[in-house]
Amino acid sequence: MSEIKLSNRFYHGTKEELLEKIKNQLSDFRYKHILGVGQTCYELAKLNGVDPEQAMIAGFVHDYAKEKTDEQFIEKIKEKKLDSDLLNWGNFIWHGVVGAEFIKDELKITDEEILNAVRRHTVGAPEMTTLDQIVYVSDYVEPNRSFPDVEIARSLAYANLKQAVIFETKHTLQFLMSSSSKIYPDAILTYNAFVAEN
Amino acid sequence: MSEIKLSNRFYHGTKEELLEKIKNQLSDFRYKHILGVGQTCYELAKLNGVDPEQAMIAGFVHDYAKEKTDEQFIEKIKEKKLDSDLLNWGNFIWHGVVGAEFIKDELKITDEEILNAVRRHTVGAPEMTTLDQIVYVSDYVEPNRSFPDVEIARSLAYANLKQAVIFETKHTLQFLMSSSSKIYPDAILTYNAFVAEN
Repeated sequence: MSEIKLSNRFYHGTKEELLEKIKNQLSDFRYKHILGVGQTCYELAKLNGVDPEQAMIAGFVHDYAKEKTDEQFIEKIKEKKLDSDLLNWGNFIWHGVVGAEFIKDELKITDEEILNAVRRHTVGAPEMTTLDQIVYVSDYVEPNRSFPDVEIARSLAYANLKQAVIFETKHTLQFLMSSSSKIYPDAILTYNAFVAEN
Repeated sequence: MSEIKLSNRFYHGTKEELLEKIKNQLSDFRYKHILGVGQTCYELAKLNGVDPEQAMIAGFVHDYAKEKTDEQFIEKIKEKKLDSDLLNWGNFIWHGVVGAEFIKDELKITDEEILNAVRRHTVGAPEMTTLDQIVYVSDYVEPNRSFPDVEIARSLAYANLKQAVIFETKHTLQFLMSSSSKIYPDAILTYNAFVAEN
């Protein structure tokens, strides 16, 4: 993947310039993660008829805002007049929905398909484009991930993207519930659309 | 419980008259269930400082509309101008929220605390009165109920009502999820309020 050159269709600069800007925002651990997600997005895009460059960039930037402070997120929610219910949540939700605004403002990436994939990467949505599904799944199965069922999830991702979305959605919710963690209500809309109707 | 006489504070008639009207609406199986819920509500009300007569009546009527037809529910939703999103759901949701309207219209029970307990008995709510919690839990643990953890749930109900609400909410959602059944989004609000904050 390292030899891939960007075309200027989604980002006005080289891949190295984009990665440098992202690296400046993230800890080494998370930078390694976004490289893995970018690579997985690239591979899943080729398998699913999506533009691999667009998917790779979405993967690189999906956690761009993850290490912003709560104050930065709150300021951005107010500045952009986003849904004020967002203020009741935290980094887990903000880094996707509000993260897209930082990507737009600081990286000058304006492709709405990339921005939507970032917005939806944490809890999904009842209707997800193939690109949305690729970023959602890549985040879960990229090579640095390690959890009991990761090999099943990873095999599914390369065999059948939608089945990987279903697997991830169900298992994530079951995990949150087993640990009595708070669940973002929209995650249930994703569950009802992908898991319950299958 | 059979000797209890009603006071006319919640229902204008005798207990026998009320039960006769309910019996006419339900199969024998479900009539037996509502007697069990009424009895459990009565006992839990005495333990939790709630009016036992009010709780018993709420228990008797909670499933009053359960065997109405879909057409009857849809007509009632339109007649009462209830939230049109209700039309996307079915009996599981309707018999509580819409059921309260049938109780008001056909049994002439107008006590809003009873009606709210009926409205909330299926999926709960982020804020539940003690009466709401009593009906919600009694429906789950009444003597005719039988499922793997019913004895744990029943013991909790008599020991600590709120812990029983937490147990029921978590286990019901886990059960729905394990069978990939659709989840009513409001059930997650109950979960977040009762399970996740404990």
